[in-house]
Amino acid sequence: MKAEIISIGTELLLGQITDTNAPYLASELPLLGIDLHWISQVGDNRNRLVATLKRAYDRSDIIITTGGLGPTEDDVTREAISELLGEEMRVDPELEQWLRSMFQKISYDMPERNIKQANLIPSARAIANTRGTAPGWWVEREERIILAMPGPPGEVKQMWENEIRPELKRRLSGEVIISRTLKTLGLTEAKVDEMVSPLLSSTNPTIAVYAKLDGIQLRLTAKDRDAAKAEEAIARTEEKLRDILGWAIWGYDEDTLEGLIGNMLRERLLSLATMESCTGGLLASTITDAPRSSDYFKGGLVAYSAQMKAAFGVDAALLAQQGTVSPDVAAAMARAVRLRLEADIGIGITGVAGPAEVEGKPVGTVHIAIDAERESTSLSVLYPPRRHEVKRHAVYSALFKLRQLLLSWEQAVSS
Amino acid sequence: MKAEIISIGTELLLGQITDTNAPYLASELPLLGIDLHWISQVGDNRNRLVATLKRAYDRSDIIITTGGLGPTEDDVTREAISELLGEEMRVDPELEQWLRSMFQKISYDMPERNIKQANLIPSARAIANTRGTAPGWWVEREERIILAMPGPPGEVKQMWENEIRPELKRRLSGEVIISRTLKTLGLTEAKVDEMVSPLLSSTNPTIAVYAKLDGIQLRLTAKDRDAAKAEEAIARTEEKLRDILGWAIWGYDEDTLEGLIGNMLRERLLSLATMESCTGGLLASTITDAPRSSDYFKGGLVAYSAQMKAAFGVDAALLAQQGTVSPDVAAAMARAVRLRLEADIGIGITGVAGPAEVEGKPVGTVHIAIDAERESTSLSVLYPPRRHEVKRHAVYSALFKLRQLLLSWEQAVSS
Repeated sequence: MKAEIISIGTELLLGQITDTNAPYLASELPLLGIDLHWISQVGDNRNRLVATLKRAYDRSDIIITTGGLGPTEDDVTREAISELLGEEMRVDPELEQWLRSMFQKISYDMPERNIKQANLIPSARAIANTRGTAPGWWVEREERIILAMPGPPGEVKQMWENEIRPELKRRLSGEVIISRTLKTLGLTEAKVDEMVSPLLSSTNPTIAVYAKLDGIQLRLTAKDRDAAKAEEAIARTEEKLRDILGWAIWGYDEDTLEGLIGNMLRERLLSLATMESCTGGLLASTITDAPRSSDYFKGGLVAYSAQMKAAFGVDAALLAQQGTVSPDVAAAMARAVRLRLEADIGIGITGVAGPAEVEGKPVGTVHIAIDAERESTSLSVLYPPRRHEVKRHAVYSALFKLRQLLLSWEQAVSS
Repeated sequence: MKAEIISIGTELLLGQITDTNAPYLASELPLLGIDLHWISQVGDNRNRLVATLKRAYDRSDIIITTGGLGPTEDDVTREAISELLGEEMRVDPELEQWLRSMFQKISYDMPERNIKQANLIPSARAIANTRGTAPGWWVEREERIILAMPGPPGEVKQMWENEIRPELKRRLSGEVIISRTLKTLGLTEAKVDEMVSPLLSSTNPTIAVYAKLDGIQLRLTAKDRDAAKAEEAIARTEEKLRDILGWAIWGYDEDTLEGLIGNMLRERLLSLATMESCTGGLLASTITDAPRSSDYFKGGLVAYSAQMKAAFGVDAALLAQQGTVSPDVAAAMARAVRLRLEADIGIGITGVAGPAEVEGKPVGTVHIAIDAERESTSLSVLYPPRRHEVKRHAVYSALFKLRQLLLSWEQAVSS
């Protein structure tokens, strides 16, 4: 079963928006055992779109399009599919009624140009859209399926998950592709590559290594007619990778560091507080990205000057002596915020996010400290000197360090 | 001059990475007056790549590829171009020497498989790569240009900006496409669309409306052989849009709200401090995304509980009476942080980011207050109930509100 994705919209060809629909759909298709051979982007131009559809119709079994279903003259996907198949469009009375009711709901008269969104051809049925006024088209002819969805990613996701994916699942029963992502931190991409190189020649599952802001990820992908066998192949290789990478693996698939740490803190009834300088609030914001973080996050202080650090409880003599960027200052920040906000654990981060160096320390210098009653620990790093990346990397390093600390306490208890 | 982009890599077809090279290059081409008609993604499969290149060679003047220039068996772009043109690859001695010197620099013996990166065909010359070991190929034959670049976005950007763009600029002297983005906040997409609808039929410049997290944006795009005339066309339409949209326009092109506000505060010698609840530090982090924000940002407090708000100076009686989510509490937070951190302006944000409602208030409820000695102001909003979006929207609304306040003071002074 060969699939092809066509993303439609002149804004894609002008680089004004990045096509996120194609990667989303591309990541979904393997789970249905559908092979994706082609992705293309084409503008709001009827002739070029018909040519692209024609080629896809000749070489693929499933064609998935996004975009071009709006009410304006620019939106030509329906017209292009009709031309491709030589079928005439007619307003479908049921669809028209639904469309008018959508507009009534938002107390708005339907502009007459929107009527074109109620068009169908004989080979097409409408796909429900609960987030917008553009229904999709499910077209079937000559053992080919064309799935036309609107462009907004929220509408694509909704339509795919609720309407298209379940129906395709029912129909297909071919090979299943299962994948699993292992997330690591604390090792470079080259190092991970070197460590796992004996396994990289494996073909089922294949192993791919990616560098992300929250660390190096390994993606295992297995293919089999039997889902259980694919799962087994993944599990076997995963075990080998765990032996090799050990402590560096912090999570899987959709896991986030803040979510995992949140669960650990909640289970252990521990509370957390932060004092940040160079990360400017991003640490607190990342921690509170996890739902229900108020269970364990007491609060955070953003101290963007020496004066403010002193006001928040960092020893003024230490600041006068060492400046604001030093391991001792990070440790003092962690301790001060832990005591002041009455938390079990305090994190302090100070460093140089750039663009200019501070107190003679280069951009990218970061000191991270974690303070608790039973133990304190710290970490000094030099990141690539780009402001946003320094902030991001520092936050993930701090969370990873906290995870290691929490795990070490557990091991100390259980041993 | 018709161009076509081909992004190469199986990971694109598996949805494991999003193709950011194509949008980047797409946004660059109009500035050279080059029309982009097609973008496609193809896997690391020699036959399919040759077919895709063949079609592109038949219909486009410039073909730009990214990816597939690595040292491994998987990397087949050089092989595919050679097959397309029926030319044989040979190791280029000069290129081989350069490649070996790159490896020496990092004190590493060149693996023999890397020698394939020194291959050329008669119609190709190497494009320098200062960030990696894969040189690009600049291929010219039969009035067609094929530009093959490696896949990593950093290498693409470097190679494009330093090697390819200047050379293309020298050669082309056709139509120039100039564009300008107007950024608004405080109006819905439908409202903006309605307000500017008389201008939407304009073809030079064209006007496109996009919804972004930091508001609704309008992109004007003008085309002319004479760059000055394209600029004039943009300027005329821009003026009309400014008349229509007025206060809602906050910036242009690469402007960020935090950058603009930073400049305003710096010029006026005003300092800022924040106390956040539902945004969890994202307001402070966004403010400090602007370089040199320590000039005006005193610091921030993240108060994730009623107890912490009281500890940070919010009246405990008020919290007992109203709970933590109310306009009065936001105002008290703004005032408390302004006084406590000795800033000229304080911002307070409280609300419900989700997933569950708080004190009977629905997810998406946000109260924002700004407090200064001469004036205080506040804003209450209900955002769509998605945690990350609530945080993001609340932060931009707060910054936009602050901008309006600063502007109103200026007008009060100058009138």
